[in-house]
Amino acid sequence: MNPQVSIIMGSTSDLPVMKKAAEFLNSMQIPFEMLALSAHRTPEEVADFAHNASGRGVKVIIAGAGMAAALPGVIAAITALPVIGVPLSATLQGEDALLSIAQMPPGIPVATTGIDGAMNAGVLATRILALADTALASRYDSWRDSLGKKIVKANEDLKEIKYDFKVN
Amino acid sequence: MNPQVSIIMGSTSDLPVMKKAAEFLNSMQIPFEMLALSAHRTPEEVADFAHNASGRGVKVIIAGAGMAAALPGVIAAITALPVIGVPLSATLQGEDALLSIAQMPPGIPVATTGIDGAMNAGVLATRILALADTALASRYDSWRDSLGKKIVKANEDLKEIKYDFKVN
Amino acid sequence: MNPQVSIIMGSTSDLPVMKKAAEFLNSMQIPFEMLALSAHRTPEEVADFAHNASGRGVKVIIAGAGMAAALPGVIAAITALPVIGVPLSATLQGEDALLSIAQMPPGIPVATTGIDGAMNAGVLATRILALADTALASRYDSWRDSLGKKIVKANEDLKEIKYDFKVN
Amino acid sequence: MNPQVSIIMGSTSDLPVMKKAAEFLNSMQIPFEMLALSAHRTPEEVADFAHNASGRGVKVIIAGAGMAAALPGVIAAITALPVIGVPLSATLQGEDALLSIAQMPPGIPVATTGIDGAMNAGVLATRILALADTALASRYDSWRDSLGKKIVKANEDLKEIKYDFKVN
Amino acid sequence: MNPQVSIIMGSTSDLPVMKKAAEFLNSMQIPFEMLALSAHRTPEEVADFAHNASGRGVKVIIAGAGMAAALPGVIAAITALPVIGVPLSATLQGEDALLSIAQMPPGIPVATTGIDGAMNAGVLATRILALADTALASRYDSWRDSLGKKIVKANEDLKEIKYDFKVN
Amino acid sequence: MNPQVSIIMGSTSDLPVMKKAAEFLNSMQIPFEMLALSAHRTPEEVADFAHNASGRGVKVIIAGAGMAAALPGVIAAITALPVIGVPLSATLQGEDALLSIAQMPPGIPVATTGIDGAMNAGVLATRILALADTALASRYDSWRDSLGKKIVKANEDLKEIKYDFKVN
Amino acid sequence: MNPQVSIIMGSTSDLPVMKKAAEFLNSMQIPFEMLALSAHRTPEEVADFAHNASGRGVKVIIAGAGMAAALPGVIAAITALPVIGVPLSATLQGEDALLSIAQMPPGIPVATTGIDGAMNAGVLATRILALADTALASRYDSWRDSLGKKIVKANEDLKEIKYDFKVN
Amino acid sequence: MNPQVSIIMGSTSDLPVMKKAAEFLNSMQIPFEMLALSAHRTPEEVADFAHNASGRGVKVIIAGAGMAAALPGVIAAITALPVIGVPLSATLQGEDALLSIAQMPPGIPVATTGIDGAMNAGVLATRILALADTALASRYDSWRDSLGKKIVKANEDLKEIKYDFKVN
Repeated sequence: MNPQVSIIMGSTSDLPVMKKAAEFLNSMQIPFEMLALSAHRTPEEVADFAHNASGRGVKVIIAGAGMAAALPGVIAAITALPVIGVPLSATLQGEDALLSIAQMPPGIPVATTGIDGAMNAGVLATRILALADTALASRYDSWRDSLGKKIVKANEDLKEIKYDFKVN
Repeated sequence: MNPQVSIIMGSTSDLPVMKKAAEFLNSMQIPFEMLALSAHRTPEEVADFAHNASGRGVKVIIAGAGMAAALPGVIAAITALPVIGVPLSATLQGEDALLSIAQMPPGIPVATTGIDGAMNAGVLATRILALADTALASRYDSWRDSLGKKIVKANEDLKEIKYDFKVN
Repeated sequence: MNPQVSIIMGSTSDLPVMKKAAEFLNSMQIPFEMLALSAHRTPEEVADFAHNASGRGVKVIIAGAGMAAALPGVIAAITALPVIGVPLSATLQGEDALLSIAQMPPGIPVATTGIDGAMNAGVLATRILALADTALASRYDSWRDSLGKKIVKANEDLKEIKYDFKVN
Repeated sequence: MNPQVSIIMGSTSDLPVMKKAAEFLNSMQIPFEMLALSAHRTPEEVADFAHNASGRGVKVIIAGAGMAAALPGVIAAITALPVIGVPLSATLQGEDALLSIAQMPPGIPVATTGIDGAMNAGVLATRILALADTALASRYDSWRDSLGKKIVKANEDLKEIKYDFKVN
Repeated sequence: MNPQVSIIMGSTSDLPVMKKAAEFLNSMQIPFEMLALSAHRTPEEVADFAHNASGRGVKVIIAGAGMAAALPGVIAAITALPVIGVPLSATLQGEDALLSIAQMPPGIPVATTGIDGAMNAGVLATRILALADTALASRYDSWRDSLGKKIVKANEDLKEIKYDFKVN
Repeated sequence: MNPQVSIIMGSTSDLPVMKKAAEFLNSMQIPFEMLALSAHRTPEEVADFAHNASGRGVKVIIAGAGMAAALPGVIAAITALPVIGVPLSATLQGEDALLSIAQMPPGIPVATTGIDGAMNAGVLATRILALADTALASRYDSWRDSLGKKIVKANEDLKEIKYDFKVN
Repeated sequence: MNPQVSIIMGSTSDLPVMKKAAEFLNSMQIPFEMLALSAHRTPEEVADFAHNASGRGVKVIIAGAGMAAALPGVIAAITALPVIGVPLSATLQGEDALLSIAQMPPGIPVATTGIDGAMNAGVLATRILALADTALASRYDSWRDSLGKKIVKANEDLKEIKYDFKVN
Repeated sequence: MNPQVSIIMGSTSDLPVMKKAAEFLNSMQIPFEMLALSAHRTPEEVADFAHNASGRGVKVIIAGAGMAAALPGVIAAITALPVIGVPLSATLQGEDALLSIAQMPPGIPVATTGIDGAMNAGVLATRILALADTALASRYDSWRDSLGKKIVKANEDLKEIKYDFKVN
């Protein structure tokens, strides 16, 4: 089955963060692929990937990068697919990557998530794909309902706490 | 004809920036609407909008906000549609709005553009809609080709410049 | 006894910081409640809470949130009660939350504390409530006097230190 | 009639921003005073003011300051009244003042507004005073309703705009 | 005569800053070319340029870019020539461009100048070329000596100033 | 009469800010000199100055610099005199200069003022010199008293303002 | 023997940093005292201290503070002695304290060190006191010479390192 | 054999970062030296080094420094050789050092790497030296090819991962 989402990262060291996108897509039964590509180390492979992704049936690209995070923008410069960029907190708490990904010039957008926001990249890809897939939309809605239920549980936990102490 | 994209802003004072999204959508022949809604001044209207947008046929929501820019996230909390957030440089050069829009918690993504990146919000919405609309994809590709041609023109301009002066 | 102060947080993971507000209110004998509510995960419950808080006898609301910290502002948009916002250092050392809470638009204020300043949120709520409660004002004054006494003790400790060493 | 709110600023050069607090209180029919006091230039007058404010009937203090903005904190260190601090954008776009006012140590809170947020300081003071003044609460509610109506007007303006142009 | 230095910019709007590099190289009699290329708008032309620069006799590449300034890094990813990156202050005073250019991953360096530091890019290129060109080294040394002489002149100006006024 | 204070700046373009130090010293009747010296353009002259200042009777050195503001630290590395550094807002609102001047390594301090704080550099030099000069101390005290009087005048101005308008 | 330098801190928790000032003064045989005083918790004691320091023979005051670090400025507002402020990295890596201490208004300077720069505060106090104390100046010069000798030792260590490995 | 590259650092505590430059140069068979020099502690030794480096056959200087990182700029002020500056993350995550090194005034460039980017300093020096050394250029190209091969390996690793889990 062809992947609908490509998850791109610069090296396997980004996997602990980027796999949260994969996990969410997996839970939504969206076929995806994970690839290691680097705008600075393998520029030709990045260009090849970006030129061919749409033809291979990919619909949304998620690209995570840290530091001078050129990868999402470089992919978005070639493909017409929506590109979601995930700034990684490799240095400077990710502020460098956030600016390097978000501050794209007019004409070439990258849909930027929060720092290390790979799960949200997966959720955003799901929302985009669900526009044309009612079964997926339904799975998404079920999951979305479950988010609120955790808060209900948290409220019950908070009510258990008894207070009778002094401030130091 | 029903709007496919809703462009939301807090007041008409945001129009000079946000209209760049409208202009791009207009050039792509995508029907859109522009609405003034404020997460802090009209919270109930925002909730109503977010609950009803999908039912009215809207596919993508673009929301611009400055300062403690809660609007895109509050809309994304209710609708399942993809929400594109545009940080506006009302104060602090837009860094407050960028962080307030991008740093969403896990589960509720906002596709963040650069500061004052309303045109890119329009382009990103186009890329998303073009996934299921080949005529739109074709219009987008034509426009995309024109971007590079401006650079060709710029090169010709640069070659005209003659240098023969001294550094002060 | 009805709570006079509501302490709101997004999840129980915020409890280690937010309980400092609870502890201070407890020491001042001010009845309070703690609730988990999320502007992004349970927006309707937040709206219900904000609409009903005043009617239930709540006088002051303390809301802690991290990242794109919309919670205090969203509550302040609905209720007329004073809302105290506590920026939590979940990411970027809390600078994102500080800006997301403090930079409210004209008309909808949030009384912002320092980053992770939950104890100060409790003290500020106490100062507000003490305006109309002389017994509470008296308890506050006693506690306030004790703050200075710790400094007196610190001075005695400092005088104990003997110096006779060399700089490396 | 005794002032219920004191608006403090370092010099008359802060008046263009700080008068927004005065204007709002005036519209709410809350008696107020405006004073020039400087933590660094008139420290004794600041201490006198802070010691005597409550005895003179003042209920809430609003203090605006820029740069190393010590004024709100120094007042809050002496009085038991709630103190609202307004960071002024004298330098560094007000980021220095925001941090100097918000980052108070445990025990001595300042209710911080956004940068140059003097109007919100007036609104916050009103919310606090309205806890014990139902006529004021009613005036506040009427004003609050009017905020949303501006948005309704903005929407009508936006609908007037016709789009039929090309992106450059 | 073949250019030894290529000065690359994203559009002619960068020319007012980037021409300072050209002016310095011109004064040093170093042949150069100026080209408009964009990592995001003309990625293939950038790749072609980077692959061919060395073969055309170019020795040093100067690339200026603002915002998510990918251009210098993308060029440095392909060529083996030294690449000097000039962060342009298009937005956020150039802090976004500085981080986007300087924070390159291990293996692919960009020699970053200060924000809008195009003249220094020209000087740095000159220092590099002068390693193998003693006539150029001599021209550089003459120019370098002149820098100090401006300071001597400034000192004479300062001595002219008479002081006899009062602080307000 | 020998100068007791040396005011150093990189060029006459810094004079509009740095002359505030001169004006204050002049009003205190402290003999001073102004010199243009650059850590990066005239390093040898800087070293000569720093080696000889004490021998010429200079007691305090004030050095203003912007950007990568090495001048105060480089002087402080050679002389044993107290060096006051004034960060100038040439770029990045002076944040680069503030960090470049304040963040000195252990052993070589620079007494840093606020950004563009040249007047305060003059006041600080005066306080240092007044430790051993009772006539100067007396002149300083007179001036210090006058600071508070401006606030008294400001208060009178504020009392003149009548409020009777509506918030928009 | 009367202390010539007062080292002030907000609590004994600041001692691990602030004692570096004490250690340096001790090594220079300068009598000093250490006191705990808080601008926010013991404002009256701070005022008393600042009014009396000069009369007790103190010549220089070193004050360390974190967060909204008002202490050095509040002391400098009262005394005519030179005040050295040490920003402590309690939160936000000390950037809040640096701005709160350095950005003083015209007229009231604080000689600011780097973040956690307590040793440099001691060195700066020494340089100031040495202006009128040739024996101290001589002790300072001896110590200053020793700083360079550590670098000589470091050079010897570096020459010992043998390189013969591969980059991974 | 004379060193072609000098690697300068302030103390042996910088060695864990700075040795990455040494390791890369070693792998490229470029003779180098490592020296400890401090702009603030051994200014005369720094000046001597900078005056003599070119005469000793050095071609490129790499200087690492943290905090108020004056070292690279001070060396670049004296020598005509290209100077590569490495900002070290001693404090403030290296943002202070990045600004202190990059923001050089017109005329005196420092080729700045990313924070702690010592390996890239070595790579940049190699690229510069390879302009006049074809054997080195060939060794560099071989190493450059190997960078991409790690990505190929990473891709194989990513394909091994099987996904079949649920989001929490």
